[in-house]
Amino acid sequence: MKIARFVEAGQPRLGIVEDGVVYRAEGNLFDPGALRRGDAVGPLEELELLTPVQPGKIVAVGLNYALHVTENDPTRQVPDEPVLFMKPTSALLPHGGVILLPPGDRIDYEAELCIVIGRRASRVPESQALDYVLGYTCGNDVSHRDYQRKDGQWVRAKGFDTFCPLGPVIATDLDPNDLAIQSRLNGEVRQNSRTSNMIFSPAFLVSFISNVMTLEPGDVIMTGTPEGVGPMKPGDTIEVEIEGIGTLRNTTRARD
Amino acid sequence: MKIARFVEAGQPRLGIVEDGVVYRAEGNLFDPGALRRGDAVGPLEELELLTPVQPGKIVAVGLNYALHVTENDPTRQVPDEPVLFMKPTSALLPHGGVILLPPGDRIDYEAELCIVIGRRASRVPESQALDYVLGYTCGNDVSHRDYQRKDGQWVRAKGFDTFCPLGPVIATDLDPNDLAIQSRLNGEVRQNSRTSNMIFSPAFLVSFISNVMTLEPGDVIMTGTPEGVGPMKPGDTIEVEIEGIGTLRNTTRARD
Repeated sequence: MKIARFVEAGQPRLGIVEDGVVYRAEGNLFDPGALRRGDAVGPLEELELLTPVQPGKIVAVGLNYALHVTENDPTRQVPDEPVLFMKPTSALLPHGGVILLPPGDRIDYEAELCIVIGRRASRVPESQALDYVLGYTCGNDVSHRDYQRKDGQWVRAKGFDTFCPLGPVIATDLDPNDLAIQSRLNGEVRQNSRTSNMIFSPAFLVSFISNVMTLEPGDVIMTGTPEGVGPMKPGDTIEVEIEGIGTLRNTTRARD
Repeated sequence: MKIARFVEAGQPRLGIVEDGVVYRAEGNLFDPGALRRGDAVGPLEELELLTPVQPGKIVAVGLNYALHVTENDPTRQVPDEPVLFMKPTSALLPHGGVILLPPGDRIDYEAELCIVIGRRASRVPESQALDYVLGYTCGNDVSHRDYQRKDGQWVRAKGFDTFCPLGPVIATDLDPNDLAIQSRLNGEVRQNSRTSNMIFSPAFLVSFISNVMTLEPGDVIMTGTPEGVGPMKPGDTIEVEIEGIGTLRNTTRARD
């Protein structure tokens, strides 16, 4: 099942998406089996979408594809444990939203598979970790490289408003372990990999992170980006497509 | 005015604190001028307190007191801009709560003045920044030094459940710029400084962070810790006292 959130008469609504058409859904996002499908609202691409979930926190994983680890710094080592950072929820941007680019030499796209937590997870074993997952969506871990280098810590570089596009839908009932993942800048393929190339699998990540911090329903884990990252300029269109989920599309504009 | 949150009959309640006594308060935390003081509930130290606010995000500032910058690493430079990181809200712990220490060689206390945002702040100038502040509270930025060194990024090291004690109260109508700040481990003074020693002032930090990310009512900014940090062991009592606010007291226990 694919689940979206959209705006209707100024209110957030849940929808079930089938063949690109959004149908009203009654029920609770975290109990997708009990969602009741209602009338068609319209094509996904014509609605005002929200991020498909409103997370309480966004935990992100750095350096989780071996070929990305060294692409900007050949001396960098592949980590033996996941490297965690966070993005603020104030950075969230839905499908179709505009990424605002502050001044800077290089602000990159980063296509990422995102895990949406379905129920509270604290210190769960890897073997059961995916039972705590509601589904998966596409994310773009927009990164201001100047500040990333300067600060050492990545929160400013990756935390600007609009730097966390997420969507367009949450796909439930999806095996996350070998999905095609791609980014396209103005239609040109820039990243092209498979989630099977992750160093740490989705199940491992949920277990690892839940051993540090309790994960709540709606929390999002961004699982890292494959090689091929690069800069965006004002006026670009950036797409993140993941097999079985769909395409997250955003445009860019200079922030005043 | 000093505002606390406490549990009564299983429900969170607001209270106004005067001379160590909590009085029921009716109204909205973010409109403290309109809070109505009701009956006395009891002494602050005898109630089950909550963190005085439930933030949507916790933004923290590293290396904001010059003498702390070099105390663990003499080669470290004083930063020319604030270094930002985040702590997850799942790490919050109220006054009186138990800090759970995972395995590790060194897990430190860090006494910090915490800013509580009162209204939405986006790109506010330093001269107006304190108008967006509800008040101030005490925080302990508990830090797992082994992981802080290993990861480079600080989110895991500082993000474990219970690693963000906050409280006991929010003090409004407080000038944050020259307050005594102290930590005591088992009653012995370990950190002893003044907020006037900050490299970047509270007003500068609110402005700087709001230029990156929109701050929402309830968001917390932890403003960095002075020199004197050190390790805690299971069974310790750690206190953070800030002039004009009060004392945040927690104990520690080994996490199984």
